[in-house]
Amino acid sequence: MEKLKQRILKDGQVRNGEVLKVDSFLNHQMDIDLLDEIGAEFQRLFQDENITKILTIEASGIAIACMTARHFHVPVVFAKKAKSLNLDGELYTSKVHSFTYDRDYDITVSKKFIQSDDRILIIDDFMANGKAMDGLIDICHQAHAQVAGIGICIEKGFQGGGDRLRKEGYRLESLAIVESMEPGHIVFR
Amino acid sequence: MEKLKQRILKDGQVRNGEVLKVDSFLNHQMDIDLLDEIGAEFQRLFQDENITKILTIEASGIAIACMTARHFHVPVVFAKKAKSLNLDGELYTSKVHSFTYDRDYDITVSKKFIQSDDRILIIDDFMANGKAMDGLIDICHQAHAQVAGIGICIEKGFQGGGDRLRKEGYRLESLAIVESMEPGHIVFR
Repeated sequence: MEKLKQRILKDGQVRNGEVLKVDSFLNHQMDIDLLDEIGAEFQRLFQDENITKILTIEASGIAIACMTARHFHVPVVFAKKAKSLNLDGELYTSKVHSFTYDRDYDITVSKKFIQSDDRILIIDDFMANGKAMDGLIDICHQAHAQVAGIGICIEKGFQGGGDRLRKEGYRLESLAIVESMEPGHIVFR
Repeated sequence: MEKLKQRILKDGQVRNGEVLKVDSFLNHQMDIDLLDEIGAEFQRLFQDENITKILTIEASGIAIACMTARHFHVPVVFAKKAKSLNLDGELYTSKVHSFTYDRDYDITVSKKFIQSDDRILIIDDFMANGKAMDGLIDICHQAHAQVAGIGICIEKGFQGGGDRLRKEGYRLESLAIVESMEPGHIVFR
């Protein structure tokens, strides 16, 4: 998606080699008109997949998932990263390793919100190693729901998660794939 | 907002006296078409306030803030509940007490995303004691930005946070104010 790539080139900042900061428009401050166009693009890409639900993970995935869901007119479910006192009933749980924080954490989704006849579009802002995505896919499998597609705003291609998932057979569409980056110089695939 | 109240009566569940679960449509699974109508209603209520930015707090506030911002065409900024390794630069920080978890936590916003000439609309899904809202207001004050309005989906009127903020002079609009509740019986103000 050319508009997203141009925005990354304009406002993205590379830190410590592997961190691409896009917090001025994507995941801390959010340019809603851009997110709405991102949502429309995901709808165009996955319009033939009979999507029944969008799944994402808190926190920054929620904005993009919502702005995508409004083009599909389907509900959004977001996986939670910590057990909440108000999350009762039966839960799907999957363990995710965070390289950013170097620790494992559980993600949870209430069982009542994913059904075996759901065709799920998983949406997230970033993909690097794909560990959070593995957890979301695992939850879909536990629910016997179909992963009909995966939509990512920015894939860090050099970290390999996206290519691994494509090899595993998932339909993964990333709107911008960063092949390499250093301060002041970002190269897209 | 009659449609929201009807949905609360239909799908809301009262637990342990003080917990109103609306996780099937508002804050775990989200009915995006309803959220879009909620956003349009906030736009109608605050259209004369020259809103420049919407501020919310992760995680469940993000969905409603985004679906509101799309009607205003202004950016959303969400306060983070934990310090992130990727959140560098100068931060506004405020301490919030959570009654749900009985502990204090810090909320943070990058200083670069709130300016002294901003007119902020603060959006959240719930208001109970108003402690999280106090933190968001504190951050706006630190930035010398104007709190032009506060929009809440569900206010638990019997917990007093909303009335306290109204007395302090804030323009607070709640789409549904629960005056009392017990299992199977919810009364709106």
